[in-house]
Amino acid sequence: MLDELRQASALRGLRRQQRQVLIDARRLLSERGEANSLGQARELLDKIAKLPPEGLDELFERLSLDFNPDPQAVLLAAQAYAAEPNAAHLLALSRVSEPPRQELFRRLNRAPGATGVLVRLRRNLLGGLARHPEWRSVESDLLHLFGSWFNPGFLQMRQVDWNSPAQLLEQIIRHEAVHEIDGWDDLRRRLQPDRRLFAFFHPQLPDEPLIFVEVALLPEMPAAIAPLIDKKAETMAPDKFKVAVFYSISNCEPGLKGVSLGNFLIKRVAEHLQREHPKLKTFCTLSPIPGFSAWLQRSSDFSALKQLKKPQLERAREARELLLQASGGELAKLSQAETLAKLDSAAQQALQRLAAVYLVGQTTGAQGDPVARFHLDNGARLERLNPMGNRAAKGLKQSCGMMVNYLYDLGKIEGYHEAFTQGEIAYSRGVAALL
Amino acid sequence: MLDELRQASALRGLRRQQRQVLIDARRLLSERGEANSLGQARELLDKIAKLPPEGLDELFERLSLDFNPDPQAVLLAAQAYAAEPNAAHLLALSRVSEPPRQELFRRLNRAPGATGVLVRLRRNLLGGLARHPEWRSVESDLLHLFGSWFNPGFLQMRQVDWNSPAQLLEQIIRHEAVHEIDGWDDLRRRLQPDRRLFAFFHPQLPDEPLIFVEVALLPEMPAAIAPLIDKKAETMAPDKFKVAVFYSISNCEPGLKGVSLGNFLIKRVAEHLQREHPKLKTFCTLSPIPGFSAWLQRSSDFSALKQLKKPQLERAREARELLLQASGGELAKLSQAETLAKLDSAAQQALQRLAAVYLVGQTTGAQGDPVARFHLDNGARLERLNPMGNRAAKGLKQSCGMMVNYLYDLGKIEGYHEAFTQGEIAYSRGVAALL
Amino acid sequence: MLDELRQASALRGLRRQQRQVLIDARRLLSERGEANSLGQARELLDKIAKLPPEGLDELFERLSLDFNPDPQAVLLAAQAYAAEPNAAHLLALSRVSEPPRQELFRRLNRAPGATGVLVRLRRNLLGGLARHPEWRSVESDLLHLFGSWFNPGFLQMRQVDWNSPAQLLEQIIRHEAVHEIDGWDDLRRRLQPDRRLFAFFHPQLPDEPLIFVEVALLPEMPAAIAPLIDKKAETMAPDKFKVAVFYSISNCEPGLKGVSLGNFLIKRVAEHLQREHPKLKTFCTLSPIPGFSAWLQRSSDFSALKQLKKPQLERAREARELLLQASGGELAKLSQAETLAKLDSAAQQALQRLAAVYLVGQTTGAQGDPVARFHLDNGARLERLNPMGNRAAKGLKQSCGMMVNYLYDLGKIEGYHEAFTQGEIAYSRGVAALL
Amino acid sequence: MLDELRQASALRGLRRQQRQVLIDARRLLSERGEANSLGQARELLDKIAKLPPEGLDELFERLSLDFNPDPQAVLLAAQAYAAEPNAAHLLALSRVSEPPRQELFRRLNRAPGATGVLVRLRRNLLGGLARHPEWRSVESDLLHLFGSWFNPGFLQMRQVDWNSPAQLLEQIIRHEAVHEIDGWDDLRRRLQPDRRLFAFFHPQLPDEPLIFVEVALLPEMPAAIAPLIDKKAETMAPDKFKVAVFYSISNCEPGLKGVSLGNFLIKRVAEHLQREHPKLKTFCTLSPIPGFSAWLQRSSDFSALKQLKKPQLERAREARELLLQASGGELAKLSQAETLAKLDSAAQQALQRLAAVYLVGQTTGAQGDPVARFHLDNGARLERLNPMGNRAAKGLKQSCGMMVNYLYDLGKIEGYHEAFTQGEIAYSRGVAALL
Repeated sequence: MLDELRQASALRGLRRQQRQVLIDARRLLSERGEANSLGQARELLDKIAKLPPEGLDELFERLSLDFNPDPQAVLLAAQAYAAEPNAAHLLALSRVSEPPRQELFRRLNRAPGATGVLVRLRRNLLGGLARHPEWRSVESDLLHLFGSWFNPGFLQMRQVDWNSPAQLLEQIIRHEAVHEIDGWDDLRRRLQPDRRLFAFFHPQLPDEPLIFVEVALLPEMPAAIAPLIDKKAETMAPDKFKVAVFYSISNCEPGLKGVSLGNFLIKRVAEHLQREHPKLKTFCTLSPIPGFSAWLQRSSDFSALKQLKKPQLERAREARELLLQASGGELAKLSQAETLAKLDSAAQQALQRLAAVYLVGQTTGAQGDPVARFHLDNGARLERLNPMGNRAAKGLKQSCGMMVNYLYDLGKIEGYHEAFTQGEIAYSRGVAALL
Repeated sequence: MLDELRQASALRGLRRQQRQVLIDARRLLSERGEANSLGQARELLDKIAKLPPEGLDELFERLSLDFNPDPQAVLLAAQAYAAEPNAAHLLALSRVSEPPRQELFRRLNRAPGATGVLVRLRRNLLGGLARHPEWRSVESDLLHLFGSWFNPGFLQMRQVDWNSPAQLLEQIIRHEAVHEIDGWDDLRRRLQPDRRLFAFFHPQLPDEPLIFVEVALLPEMPAAIAPLIDKKAETMAPDKFKVAVFYSISNCEPGLKGVSLGNFLIKRVAEHLQREHPKLKTFCTLSPIPGFSAWLQRSSDFSALKQLKKPQLERAREARELLLQASGGELAKLSQAETLAKLDSAAQQALQRLAAVYLVGQTTGAQGDPVARFHLDNGARLERLNPMGNRAAKGLKQSCGMMVNYLYDLGKIEGYHEAFTQGEIAYSRGVAALL
Repeated sequence: MLDELRQASALRGLRRQQRQVLIDARRLLSERGEANSLGQARELLDKIAKLPPEGLDELFERLSLDFNPDPQAVLLAAQAYAAEPNAAHLLALSRVSEPPRQELFRRLNRAPGATGVLVRLRRNLLGGLARHPEWRSVESDLLHLFGSWFNPGFLQMRQVDWNSPAQLLEQIIRHEAVHEIDGWDDLRRRLQPDRRLFAFFHPQLPDEPLIFVEVALLPEMPAAIAPLIDKKAETMAPDKFKVAVFYSISNCEPGLKGVSLGNFLIKRVAEHLQREHPKLKTFCTLSPIPGFSAWLQRSSDFSALKQLKKPQLERAREARELLLQASGGELAKLSQAETLAKLDSAAQQALQRLAAVYLVGQTTGAQGDPVARFHLDNGARLERLNPMGNRAAKGLKQSCGMMVNYLYDLGKIEGYHEAFTQGEIAYSRGVAALL
Repeated sequence: MLDELRQASALRGLRRQQRQVLIDARRLLSERGEANSLGQARELLDKIAKLPPEGLDELFERLSLDFNPDPQAVLLAAQAYAAEPNAAHLLALSRVSEPPRQELFRRLNRAPGATGVLVRLRRNLLGGLARHPEWRSVESDLLHLFGSWFNPGFLQMRQVDWNSPAQLLEQIIRHEAVHEIDGWDDLRRRLQPDRRLFAFFHPQLPDEPLIFVEVALLPEMPAAIAPLIDKKAETMAPDKFKVAVFYSISNCEPGLKGVSLGNFLIKRVAEHLQREHPKLKTFCTLSPIPGFSAWLQRSSDFSALKQLKKPQLERAREARELLLQASGGELAKLSQAETLAKLDSAAQQALQRLAAVYLVGQTTGAQGDPVARFHLDNGARLERLNPMGNRAAKGLKQSCGMMVNYLYDLGKIEGYHEAFTQGEIAYSRGVAALL
């Protein structure tokens, strides 16, 4: 009984908070001129930041329903513009067709610290999007604004090393998503002179990395990840650097999903390293193939892979047969170290071939490998497949231990990217031979 | 003959340049994905920067004609949204109704240095707007984007003093628009501890002040400008600071016209100074009244001044009569030091009264004083009129030497601003007594 | 046989290196003018840095024997100066009586990085001093120069916190000498807002802390160390800060032994904190008593303690008897937690009394407690004894768990220090009552 | 009468101040340990800084008389050391033979800002040295300490450019001693990319340049100063830089006279520039010959110039005869532009020859040219004589317009310097031909 009373009281408190947020939001939006808007933005921001998570749903709901353009006003403006498409009609159309939400978010963003709050707001919103498809319009408006605010021209690239503030390094440890960093000693190795770590920062969030990439400087293109992230690996002398390997790239801020950062970071890092070490000739990745195992087990029929020609498809089918035998009829077993250890060279080549088939034939499809799509769309080339490149549990499970190098040939990026947008995938002679 | 050939050749060259800019612009805009956009943006930016001034007109023309939304597509989307106003239809509408120019400018802005180029582009565009009203749509799109990019939350306020880089101080000397700075010694006095200078900077333009305000710290509200900008004035001890006077505010970048900066700067400076000197009690301006003399000579009839009541208007008329006599029938003579010197006390009061009438009665009208409108709209109060506050030629000419203090009462700013948006003007008892 | 050959060859190599160092040293010293001295200093420094540890002994030997003033020249100059003590004779005397070593070290110090090398040289030299008393003159010359070079006026005090470079924090972890730091999480707690860490740096060694002190900000003077260094202690709000406790002070550089740093650091930190938090009223330490247990077991006779009066000595003897009984005749057992736990209140007070007797009666003697001497000589007062203040193994062993607060009363430091130089020890009423 | 009373009172006040300074100085010096010394040093420093200039004389007097080593103690220690020259006796000797002044200055230097005060103290002291030869000992002690404190290893070289703080640039304008800077525009030209300005700073005096050098980057070795310091000279493109010319070097702090700075600065700048522009092949000066005219008029007899051989002397005599005729018997007229304009080529060559004779034959003598001595002792070579290199009044007067290039051949500096210390002067073939 008492509990119910308490709950009811808490609920009333929450409702009051929510109502106040919306009243403030409307007030901020209706403000003519900017004189008070900064103070109002601060207050509203503060109230939003104090809302408990369960209070956000109602806020998103209202934002998606009450801050839309007026359909009739839009229609009238569109008709006028269609009748006479001049500047005055266009300005009128722009005024009425932009959702008022956008102006609300822009005004909020005048307050110190607002950018960070809005990014976290979108993080929460993305979490509920599946349940609330109507929130899509709010999410889309935020994304639109973030595209302006987190424009690569506004981002600062900084090198992170052992002289960086501890609080920053702590965030790096926490956010590394590809090859986990096991504490400070591990991190320290990854910051030695033959390893580099670069991150993007926004002037408004100077202590928070948005995305970072880890690079190894090596004498040749690597075939396995273990030596690169070995805590005790010896440091290599700079005169041996020939190849820069992007071996891990991690987003730190889920609220920025959809804002392009990785592509710009990789290219800026490549330019930076080439200035620093003119002898660096090769820029490549050593990447996982997260979807390979699942696809392998799933795909009994290759005929839908339009990138491939008939003889290639025929060879793929043969390879799959061979692997079925080698794994005793259970392809899932190919994710076990013992099974892989026993494969003969024909079976090994079959596995490589199928990985090539997967990456070349499947990437442009809806089920394709996201890592492959990211790099190929960035203008990289599928360069080399590396069996047993990742012997860690995750690597075995995802891709039977297979890893792949994507090559960034700075002179050819543009052409490869153009081709990729036409559905064509760039690959090396080595990969061609596998197919 | 040779000359004509040369001219024709130069013209062909220019046409080629312009065509190339437009081809590049369309290519950058059509780019799916971001892979190549940075490189393309750099190239296009470079080409735009190399266009001679006479080449810009054609660019603006094409931008205003060829990068508009498709009227039919907008109409269809508006109809669908009007029929069923859901998120999907709204997203579709947003997609087609935003002028493609905006996306073009956003993509350009990815290149290093782009923000500065685009600001200068708008400066040129504003210069030609009167002759080309259709460019308004381009201008408006740039303003819209600048509102996001030069959001006060992204701006950095920095104090400028004698320790600042010479290149920055040189810009301050060049841009001071209100009370000219006469070389380095003059500037030096304005940077002593009892004078302050604060400017806004954008992270992308770290060496270029956008706007700056000059402040004098004094024991009381000042009635004349000369002692404040006297090169040889003695520096006052900090324990005497009671009043902070904003005596000059200058925009440095015409390309940012319409982007709100001054209001935010004044308030941030006030907050900053109050933290530094908790004993500062009064924040005010010592401002010119640029439109007073002209209005005085023009206005023979006060009846349109709705802010004033009948008896006030009556007194205004009497004051004007009195001044007409005192100036021998030529009000323009009130801009001469000798005439002013001969005024008796009644005539002097009449002049003050008319200044009050002008500021209270005229400000909200189209012919109103822009400085008054700026401060009153920011939430300041009309505090005191100061006859002979500015004996410099410009001061005599514009306002018969009259200056005015606007008071920023930090606790009342919000209320005064709200009232002003309703057409109500806040003034002190002293001003009330004049009326 | 081969081994012997190899050894002989290595030895010859070493001899060659040593000879070259000495030849270079003489050359650098004989250099008139500075034109070449910088280059020569660099080379010599490089050769010294490459000498293996076993090669240094010979260098020290030669430095102590071959770079002394010429006794006859000194005698002649001294006689002339005694006969007629004027400026010319004094200058001549100064010229011949300063050991040429000093000029050699000064010239070496012109090279980049030299200061660090010379500090490490002295570290090595101090290690061998017991075996080579003649090196004392070299050591003394270095100390003399370090006194000039590491003058507190040249040192920079910097706060170290979680925003400091990881490489610096790593050094802090390594050098903490009083209460060991157990990894990064432990350090992190010690850098929260209610804990502070300040270090001295030299401009020539910007990345190497010379000495650092750890401070806790608390509502009252603490009686035990455990809560101060507890990794999981909650952070206290700034409005509760009343007392600043210096709970650990660590030298990082043994080569600077004898150069006064700690005293200057403590006072600079106290001034800094008082400016930051004017409400801080009390500055004190929570210090170990490293020599107490050993003295307790050793001292059967108190009569030599001249600071104490007869009745005090009598009470000390009684306290010792009581403790002998309580520990079953073995005072060493008082370093065991179980024995201490069983003490009745009379025995506990006896232990405190004897700690007071030790600190007051013994500190000025040669066997006195070094920590007590450091703080009392700095002008602190013996404020309070805290039984069981340190339950860690080292604390039990050194001082039966007893800790002590020294109080820095900023207004009385000078007087207390003067008195201490006269052999008088300042203590509180509480300590007086114990005696 | 009243005036006399006032003067007497002021004098008594001054005496009191002086006595207090000396009491404080003795107290600071007698302080055992460092506990109070920092506070005492601050107070004493403050009192010294407040002494009026006329009060300093008495202070210097007392410092020179009362803070000397005790002659008898020195004698005893010297005898003991002569009898048995071991470490203990040497330490004892060092203790008593160092003037107590030095320790006093070292302790003073612990206070913040002390270094600057002591440097200014020595500036004053140098001014009175001619009248008070006994102050030499004080001056020498300060110089000895400054040698340690202003060690080039402790100095920071910084480039000064148009981005430097205005307060620093103002000092540069004030201190330029060779080719006066005529205001901010003139300075601005000297900071363009083809001109450089580098200064030494001490960490304790971060805002005060100690010495600076101005450099021009040119395609060839310059023969005249005017184009280098022309305000309106066009800026040269970096790809044309072949020669770095040190065309002006100025000390900013007279109190540091005798402390070597210029030599170290020139070499550090040369190294720095060579790293920045590997194509720079030649480092030279364009220097005045301040003593040439005076010597020319004075020297009727060349026979004392030991650097020259008989035939060379003979040719010098002939040249002088020729110039006597050309100047109508008054060599002083050679400092007039008109006289110089009328010289025939034989007379011009005679003038050059005599400049070479002066620089080669006279530099090592007591009357030699100080600029020549500075550069030649630094290891430079006398490279080329440039008639009419300086047409400014000062240049005509000092050296009949003649200027000289000294060449810094980085690979030969050491050898040239060694030779110079043996009295041998390095010169080019061109100069040899003149002789």
